[in-house]
Amino acid sequence: MSSTVAVDTTGADLGPAEVAHGAVLAAAHGIRVRLYGPAAELSPVVAGVAGIEVVDAPISIAKAADPAAAVQSTPDASIVQVARAVAAGEADAFVVAGATGPALAAGLLHVRRAKGIHRPALALPLPVPGRPVTLVDVGANVESRPDHLVQFAFMGAALARTVLGVDRPQVALLSNGEEPSKGTPDVVATHRLLAERLADSTHVEFVGNVEGTDLTAGVADVVVTDGFTGNITLKLVEGVSQTVVGEIRKAARTNPVAMLGGLLLKPALGRFRDEIDPEGPGGAYMLGLRALGVVPHGRFTRNGFEQAIVRAARGADGALTDVVHRDLQEAGALRRSPMAAATADAAAG
Amino acid sequence: MSSTVAVDTTGADLGPAEVAHGAVLAAAHGIRVRLYGPAAELSPVVAGVAGIEVVDAPISIAKAADPAAAVQSTPDASIVQVARAVAAGEADAFVVAGATGPALAAGLLHVRRAKGIHRPALALPLPVPGRPVTLVDVGANVESRPDHLVQFAFMGAALARTVLGVDRPQVALLSNGEEPSKGTPDVVATHRLLAERLADSTHVEFVGNVEGTDLTAGVADVVVTDGFTGNITLKLVEGVSQTVVGEIRKAARTNPVAMLGGLLLKPALGRFRDEIDPEGPGGAYMLGLRALGVVPHGRFTRNGFEQAIVRAARGADGALTDVVHRDLQEAGALRRSPMAAATADAAAG
Repeated sequence: MSSTVAVDTTGADLGPAEVAHGAVLAAAHGIRVRLYGPAAELSPVVAGVAGIEVVDAPISIAKAADPAAAVQSTPDASIVQVARAVAAGEADAFVVAGATGPALAAGLLHVRRAKGIHRPALALPLPVPGRPVTLVDVGANVESRPDHLVQFAFMGAALARTVLGVDRPQVALLSNGEEPSKGTPDVVATHRLLAERLADSTHVEFVGNVEGTDLTAGVADVVVTDGFTGNITLKLVEGVSQTVVGEIRKAARTNPVAMLGGLLLKPALGRFRDEIDPEGPGGAYMLGLRALGVVPHGRFTRNGFEQAIVRAARGADGALTDVVHRDLQEAGALRRSPMAAATADAAAG
Repeated sequence: MSSTVAVDTTGADLGPAEVAHGAVLAAAHGIRVRLYGPAAELSPVVAGVAGIEVVDAPISIAKAADPAAAVQSTPDASIVQVARAVAAGEADAFVVAGATGPALAAGLLHVRRAKGIHRPALALPLPVPGRPVTLVDVGANVESRPDHLVQFAFMGAALARTVLGVDRPQVALLSNGEEPSKGTPDVVATHRLLAERLADSTHVEFVGNVEGTDLTAGVADVVVTDGFTGNITLKLVEGVSQTVVGEIRKAARTNPVAMLGGLLLKPALGRFRDEIDPEGPGGAYMLGLRALGVVPHGRFTRNGFEQAIVRAARGADGALTDVVHRDLQEAGALRRSPMAAATADAAAG
C-alpha cells in the first residue's frame, strides 16, 4: 500500500505506546504512519522502524466533556493536528484511538464534509459469527432525514466493497417489520427512495427492511438506521452478549462438575471468541468527510490499532471517498449546493 | 382472586386446547375464566372444572393481514367477542393468545381507550437474569410524542407495582447517552417532563436516561421508549441471546471433549434457563385501555397461558386502570378533553 495514515495515539486506555506498537505492525504492510502524541513515549517504540514518523503532540482532548468547544479552543491538541495534517494533504486517512466525539468535531472542522454529502455518519462492523454486519449510523447524528439515510446506505456499501472485502454488498434498512409500509414515516420514505435508487445498481443490492431479530442472523452486509436507534442497537448487542456470556461463566462456577464442564468446553469456544473479537474490524468508520477516519475503541490492544491503521490505508488506496461520490452521483443522491438547487428550480419554473 | 378473565384461544401455535389447559391451571387460583374458541376442542379439556365457561367462537382472525379491517368486518370473530364481553362488563380483563395486532384493534374499538389516555402502549417484561426489566412501548405505536412517553412511564410503573410485584419501581428513559441532554428532541423533552412530574412521587423513582448496554444490567424496573425503538430493542434482545446461545451449543458439538464439557455444564445452566424463560412473565401487557389486556406469545405452552391469565386477573384485582388514572391525575399528566382544554385556554387568555 502507498498511503499515509495520521494517527492520534492519546486516547488509548493502555497508553500511547500501545498504539505505537500497532503502528509498527501496520508499517510491516508497507503503510506510512505519522504518529501524534507524547514523543517521549512514542519514539522508543518506533525507533528504527521504516515509514513511521513521530510528531510530538502531547496535548490530548480525548476525554473532553464538550469536544466541539475543545477542538475550537485547543489548536495544539493531537487530534486537531491530525485533522489538519489530513486537510493539508500530509496524510490520506486518519485514525483516532478511543475518542469518537473529538474525532468527529475535528474532522468536521478541518477535514470537512465531502462534496455533496449531507451529514457524516459512523459505521461499525459488528463482529457477528458467520457474517459480520456493518451498522450505519451508530451515533454521529441523533436525527436523520430520509435523504441522509439514503446517503448512509451508499457510504456503508462503499465501505463494505472498498475496505471490508464484500463484493456486492446487500444493504438493508432497520425497521419494526419487513413490509415496506412498516416504520416511522421517515423510515417508510427511506425504503421507497432506496428501492428506487438501488434498483439498477450492479454493485449494491437493497434487500428491504430487516427487524432486530435479523441483525445477528446474517441477512445483510450493511444495515442502515438513524444515529439514535443505531447507538442503542450497538450498545444492546454489546450488553446482551456480555450478559449471556457472563451468566454462562457464572453457571460454570457453581459446582466442581460444572467447572470441569466449562474447562472442557473452553477450547472449542476459541473460534467463537475470535469471531466476536471487537478488535477484528478495527473500530468505527467515520464516513462522509474528505478522507476516511477510523476510530478504534480506547480499550483496544496493539492488534486492534494495527487493524484500524491497515483499514484506513485500504480505504485511502481504494479511493473510498471517490467511490462514494461517484455512486451517489450515478444514483442522483448527491446533496445539491444551494446555488445549483436555485438554478435548477429557476430552470424548472 | 375474584376477577373474571375473557380469553381468546384461537391464536395459539399448539392449538386452542393448550390455552384451555392453561385456563385449568389458572382456575386453581380461584380465577373465573371465559374461554372463546372452538367449543369442540375446548370443552373436553375443561369439563368439570369449576369457574371456567366455554363460549363457542370458532372464527379466528388471529392471522389476519389487516387486523383493523378484520375486526370491523368479522363481528363473530373470537377476539371481537372477547373485547365485547369486556366492554359489557362480563369480564374484568382479557387475554389474547398470540395475536397482538387483532388484540390491539379489537381493544381500541370495543374496550376503548381509558379516560385521559393519549395512546395505548404495549409493555413487555424482558426475562433478564437477576432483575427483569419491563420495556414500554414495544410496538403499539410507531411514533410517540413526549406527552405519550410520559404516560407510558406511569402506565409501566403502575403495571410493575400492581402486577409484577415491584414496590417502588425505578423508571428510566432509553437514550443514546446518560446525560439529560442526550437523545432526539422528543427524548430530551420527555426527560425534562418525567423529572418534573416524578420529582415528588413516593411510589415511583425516575432514574434518568439509560443506554442500550444498561438494559440487561439491572439498572431499572421499567424502561420507556417509543414503539419503533422498543420493537427493535425487543427483537434485538431475542436475536442476540439466541445467536450467542446457539454459537455456544455449536461449539459444544465440535468434538467429544467439548461435548462432554457441555453435558457437565448443562445442569448448572438450569437456573439461567428458568430466569430467561419468556413464558414466566406471561407475555406483553396492553396498557391504556379501560381494562388490562395480556398477549402471551403464540408459541407459549399451557404454563405461559396460565401466567397470562393469572396476571390479567391480578391487574383487575389491583384496579390497575384506576391506579394509572389516579397517578396521572396527581401528576397533571392526563390528556385533557378538547372541551376542557378550550375552557382552560379561555380562562388563561
